[in-house]
Amino acid sequence: MTIPLNADRFWDSLQEMARIGATPEGGVKRLALSHEDRVARALLRDWAIAAGCTVTVDRLGSMYCTYPGADPDAAPVAVGSHLDSVPTGGKYDGPYGVLLGLEIVRALHEAGRRTHAPITVVNWTNEEGSRFTPAMSASGAAMGVLDEAKVLAAPDNFDPAFTYSDALQAIGWAGPEDPALARDFAAYFEAHIEQGPILEREGIPIGIVTHCIGVEQWEIVVTGEDGHVGYPMAGRKDALVAASELILALERVAIETGGMATAARLTLQPDARGNIPSLVRLAANIRHPDEDGNARMEAAFRTAMQEVAARRGVTAEIIRIGGYPRVPFAPKLLDALRRAADGAQLKHRDMPGPIPQDALHVGIVVPSALMFIPCHGGVSHHPSESISREWCAAGLATMGPAVIEAAGGLA
Amino acid sequence: MTIPLNADRFWDSLQEMARIGATPEGGVKRLALSHEDRVARALLRDWAIAAGCTVTVDRLGSMYCTYPGADPDAAPVAVGSHLDSVPTGGKYDGPYGVLLGLEIVRALHEAGRRTHAPITVVNWTNEEGSRFTPAMSASGAAMGVLDEAKVLAAPDNFDPAFTYSDALQAIGWAGPEDPALARDFAAYFEAHIEQGPILEREGIPIGIVTHCIGVEQWEIVVTGEDGHVGYPMAGRKDALVAASELILALERVAIETGGMATAARLTLQPDARGNIPSLVRLAANIRHPDEDGNARMEAAFRTAMQEVAARRGVTAEIIRIGGYPRVPFAPKLLDALRRAADGAQLKHRDMPGPIPQDALHVGIVVPSALMFIPCHGGVSHHPSESISREWCAAGLATMGPAVIEAAGGLA
Repeated sequence: MTIPLNADRFWDSLQEMARIGATPEGGVKRLALSHEDRVARALLRDWAIAAGCTVTVDRLGSMYCTYPGADPDAAPVAVGSHLDSVPTGGKYDGPYGVLLGLEIVRALHEAGRRTHAPITVVNWTNEEGSRFTPAMSASGAAMGVLDEAKVLAAPDNFDPAFTYSDALQAIGWAGPEDPALARDFAAYFEAHIEQGPILEREGIPIGIVTHCIGVEQWEIVVTGEDGHVGYPMAGRKDALVAASELILALERVAIETGGMATAARLTLQPDARGNIPSLVRLAANIRHPDEDGNARMEAAFRTAMQEVAARRGVTAEIIRIGGYPRVPFAPKLLDALRRAADGAQLKHRDMPGPIPQDALHVGIVVPSALMFIPCHGGVSHHPSESISREWCAAGLATMGPAVIEAAGGLA
Repeated sequence: MTIPLNADRFWDSLQEMARIGATPEGGVKRLALSHEDRVARALLRDWAIAAGCTVTVDRLGSMYCTYPGADPDAAPVAVGSHLDSVPTGGKYDGPYGVLLGLEIVRALHEAGRRTHAPITVVNWTNEEGSRFTPAMSASGAAMGVLDEAKVLAAPDNFDPAFTYSDALQAIGWAGPEDPALARDFAAYFEAHIEQGPILEREGIPIGIVTHCIGVEQWEIVVTGEDGHVGYPMAGRKDALVAASELILALERVAIETGGMATAARLTLQPDARGNIPSLVRLAANIRHPDEDGNARMEAAFRTAMQEVAARRGVTAEIIRIGGYPRVPFAPKLLDALRRAADGAQLKHRDMPGPIPQDALHVGIVVPSALMFIPCHGGVSHHPSESISREWCAAGLATMGPAVIEAAGGLA
């Protein structure tokens, strides 16, 4: 590593990008394929071109800003993330990874140097999934995990008559490139804020993400019996009381097995002040760092669920509605990150990635690596999402050399 | 008691009334002041006139079918209930009490006899409260517990631009009488299905309701902290998990103190698949047969609530949004019912009334009595609500003589 990376320029660019869609609360609202997303894309494009990149766009709107390598035939090494945000987003979830890639190519350009292979800075469309379901849809379609036509036909969650494709056309960012070309990347690096409290709590600036953990999404349906709220306690089959036991069982199982489980949504019937709840639907989400962790959690939860159902005279079932596979990252790339952190005298630790990122989809096909930096209080998807300048610089000092090494080093 | 009451005629009239608003599921949908309510009112009016009654209607639409007494100056003894139903109602909740009163005057008319005081069969408007909030609004306004103008201005819950007053005018049942005249009743009797399982379980056909129990309606607000569902379990402040503990604490407190408590509605924020719930609002309802029972339940629940809130780092508070007072019934009238049941060789038991009925409002002002007959499985507000012919007849054989006695006996 012989070129100077400019951590101040990186920080300043993050702040400048955060002005696009800035909210009064200090956060960012930059929904996928919105006006704000268009402005952000234009800024990235202009910056990339000024840094000597060629910018191409695929049919799903994902941007590829490629800085040429010394070997024009070498497959590019990609580094990226996303510029879209949730409705109540912060400044760093997404842009951190994109602009870190940009700083690498800016530094190369400034130094007048090239790596052996090209370096491509990627901005994946619709990572958050707030506007178009599912999340990470462009990276998923690029990797063949999702169907491209279905991704393009996804309705706008805020205006269902409008689609992903409509929005892409409307902002003028439907490109000609085949998204499947991304499968030919030699490697993919993604830097992201942790969205959790571990690194800050431990005082470690770099998290080496060994794998994205498997996620299961369930609907748990509890069926009891309706009745007037003046009915005696004995003999009731209250679906909400039973569901409360299941919510607590889910928490207990997660804690006992070292996983995570959340009942995130709850609807009930008849939903009337005078009626005992007879039906509850819970949207639950389980994820575990171990390979067999979700299966173990499910088995333990099912045992608890059957006991509750039998004791309370209700029925309870789990309907599987989605999830993400467990995706391990490329050991060689993770090693490059560890060595780079060591070289920069930065503490680092291995950790699982509890939240899916685009790297999950890319990692299914392309040798990939995901790296975390801390965020204050573990807060993300919130206007108060924040990072320190030191953490910001640490990520750059780690991933910059690793990307250059993966691209064959300076030519 | 020297006139024959016709239990078959009573039963047949219940079945005929149940045809008005009959649903394919075998129940009744006869919302207050609906077309079906109008047809039911006309049938009651025609039956009452044929039985020698004068029918008057008050400004709230409540019907008074008065069979003359031998003493024209004596205050009438009233017996009644309601003909409206919930959207998924059954055949007996309400009509049982009205048509029981009708059978008494029919029997008197058929026998060519009078009691000393007049007997007034009452059909109170909007007992159920399904269409217009609150429930039992006409009896409440009649007794001065509720404001008449507010009752008339209540919006239709299914079409808020339309009011109670509009609906009353639309079906042509806005009368000229002052509802406050009902405060001058000498006594008020109401027969109702139990809406609970106790009488059937114990094989007792008559419940003497000593009092309507006090009801408290709460909103319980639990505030935790938002976070991604991939956040570790330690450090979460999940409002739904905390609320689940409160729901179970509410159940436990009710069982331990011998009361009833129900969390009937639950809403949460942010209500998103990927977010830990940060805010939960529970609509809860507590009621206890003892005079200080609700206060004891509240104290025990607050202790549990504070423990949960402190342990989980959330806040929880109770907002009082409504309720009903504890209303004892008139000992003399209850005695008359007990003696009548004994005379008919019917088993009876004293019991609290866990569910407010019109008798609760009337009983605040007028000496009143409420009597239950069993219903199968304790089921009400449901198409499968049902009673046996024996229970139906038992109620008539008990309340008939008691009403005649309260009206000064046969003249």
